[in-house]
Amino acid sequence: MSDRAETAAHAVSPDRDLTVARAGEAAVLAVLSGPGDGHADDPVGNGDDAAVLGPAEATVVTTDMLVEGTHFRLDFTGWADLGRRAVAQNVSDVLAMGADCTRVLVALAVPAGTTMGQIEDLAAGIHGEAARSGAVVVGGDLTRADLVVVGVTAIGTLPRGARALRINGAEPGDAVALTGTPGRSAAGLALLLAGHPQGPLQQSHRVPVPPIGLGTAARLAGARSLTDVSDGLLRDLSGLARASGVAADLTADALPVDPLLYEAAGTLGAADPAAQVTDWVLDGGEDHGLLGTFPPGTTPPAGFTVIGTVRAGEPGRVTLDGQPRVPGGWDSARGAN
Amino acid sequence: MSDRAETAAHAVSPDRDLTVARAGEAAVLAVLSGPGDGHADDPVGNGDDAAVLGPAEATVVTTDMLVEGTHFRLDFTGWADLGRRAVAQNVSDVLAMGADCTRVLVALAVPAGTTMGQIEDLAAGIHGEAARSGAVVVGGDLTRADLVVVGVTAIGTLPRGARALRINGAEPGDAVALTGTPGRSAAGLALLLAGHPQGPLQQSHRVPVPPIGLGTAARLAGARSLTDVSDGLLRDLSGLARASGVAADLTADALPVDPLLYEAAGTLGAADPAAQVTDWVLDGGEDHGLLGTFPPGTTPPAGFTVIGTVRAGEPGRVTLDGQPRVPGGWDSARGAN
Repeated sequence: MSDRAETAAHAVSPDRDLTVARAGEAAVLAVLSGPGDGHADDPVGNGDDAAVLGPAEATVVTTDMLVEGTHFRLDFTGWADLGRRAVAQNVSDVLAMGADCTRVLVALAVPAGTTMGQIEDLAAGIHGEAARSGAVVVGGDLTRADLVVVGVTAIGTLPRGARALRINGAEPGDAVALTGTPGRSAAGLALLLAGHPQGPLQQSHRVPVPPIGLGTAARLAGARSLTDVSDGLLRDLSGLARASGVAADLTADALPVDPLLYEAAGTLGAADPAAQVTDWVLDGGEDHGLLGTFPPGTTPPAGFTVIGTVRAGEPGRVTLDGQPRVPGGWDSARGAN
Repeated sequence: MSDRAETAAHAVSPDRDLTVARAGEAAVLAVLSGPGDGHADDPVGNGDDAAVLGPAEATVVTTDMLVEGTHFRLDFTGWADLGRRAVAQNVSDVLAMGADCTRVLVALAVPAGTTMGQIEDLAAGIHGEAARSGAVVVGGDLTRADLVVVGVTAIGTLPRGARALRINGAEPGDAVALTGTPGRSAAGLALLLAGHPQGPLQQSHRVPVPPIGLGTAARLAGARSLTDVSDGLLRDLSGLARASGVAADLTADALPVDPLLYEAAGTLGAADPAAQVTDWVLDGGEDHGLLGTFPPGTTPPAGFTVIGTVRAGEPGRVTLDGQPRVPGGWDSARGAN
């Protein structure tokens, strides 16, 4: 961060058509930081070299960036949705530790011709999604680039005595459970690429909606492991199972399937709509649901669907109705598998 | 973060010529995360959805990104230096709160053709610079992009009862003091652009060296305000003064000037070498020294040079030998002023 001292002097919102190059860093950071003074528990919020967070028993912290052309196209995703998505995917990683998100920091790169209106929309998305978690923005950084990059750091806290939900805690006999209906984002992207710009699935692709509160609920319900589904249900389940040294069996009939996926497969003229839907459900990424395991005798909280069981076996191996199934999904270095 | 579960399986370093697209995300993240298990105080280090930090009285957190073409050119800056610089500039913001850096998270975007050797060099720079602070890497994120972006989140801790050093704490009568010799990075960049690739100033441009320990030392010595010089001495002093509601007077003879700056001005054939050197010293950015104020009766710690005094006056106004001087330096939205 820099030039934070100038923030206060520019708190009045400038013309929406003004470019960031003309408005200057201080004006942009003032909009990004928003009207708040940070988190009530914190000695230092926005406006200094760094934020200083108040006392915490355990602090959860994660960072991720969204890059134009790789993660989003500005012709598919508006600035407000981009801001919401950047926060949402980081919040999701905090939830996946069994915590709630409390603070967000934003590092932003934009072309010089970006307008203050676009920055305001982005900030509205960032602050809106943070507020959904009860979190506030406590820091920002701005730089120029030829393309848009939004880096977010999300921070959460765990209460005294609470145990973080690890990815490696699954044990044989656990129930495998999932929030939401996977595959919506992948189906939405397919519709967007086929020239269907509007619809609920397309919006799911633009902005995932992490299940606020369900990470903590899973922890309180006694979950033994938890992760978020960013790369695909099979791929992330396989990863959780491998980290835990176990295998997992899924039951096809138990998978929650959004009926809109069948509609999308029809719209797209899929040769085998059922197979297309199964691919989206099992291998579609970026839904950011929570995936975890619960030991016998516990009940997953409302919002989770039990989709299978953990068993002893080759670490990371996943079957569907007894048949081995190799994850597709997304590898951030390789791309689609 | 994602695919962290696969990290352990790929801990053996692959061929340096292998591209990240072929090596896969897990292999890249394993190299970025390094051999360590995170910080000894932390319940969860690398390898999960998020890191979980142990109990802390006050946590300092800041984030910044370096973008290829804006902040660095790979023909001027090698991968190891890039890693060091990305960490150093964030560490600097933690020092500027009067704290020491303890943990680092890295979000990296690279083209698919980036080699594992380049990733290893980058990681060596990141871990080396973190180690200089006694910090460890506790998280990573990887994505593909057409250009290189390195986002770093740096985290520090303040001991119980310690007060963070704010940018807005300066009061009339304070001494203004600075670490290091400003202008080295700017002179180094000028030499690089003029076709002189090697030398100590050029290396200062490639990698700033924040004064580890001097943020804490300033706090213990009773500093009333502190910031880091990222945009230029005058600009950052003006920002500190504005935030504090005071003015500041600098004494030209007191400014610490590295003799190499005169040599550089000569090499570059500056028409007025003394004026060129003064410009570098006052307006050169990215040296990442610490700039603070100390009340009467205190002594700045070794490593600080007293360069002026704080007085009541128009907030943010800075004079040099009694003459008003408008900051040049760098605005991250506008560019050079």
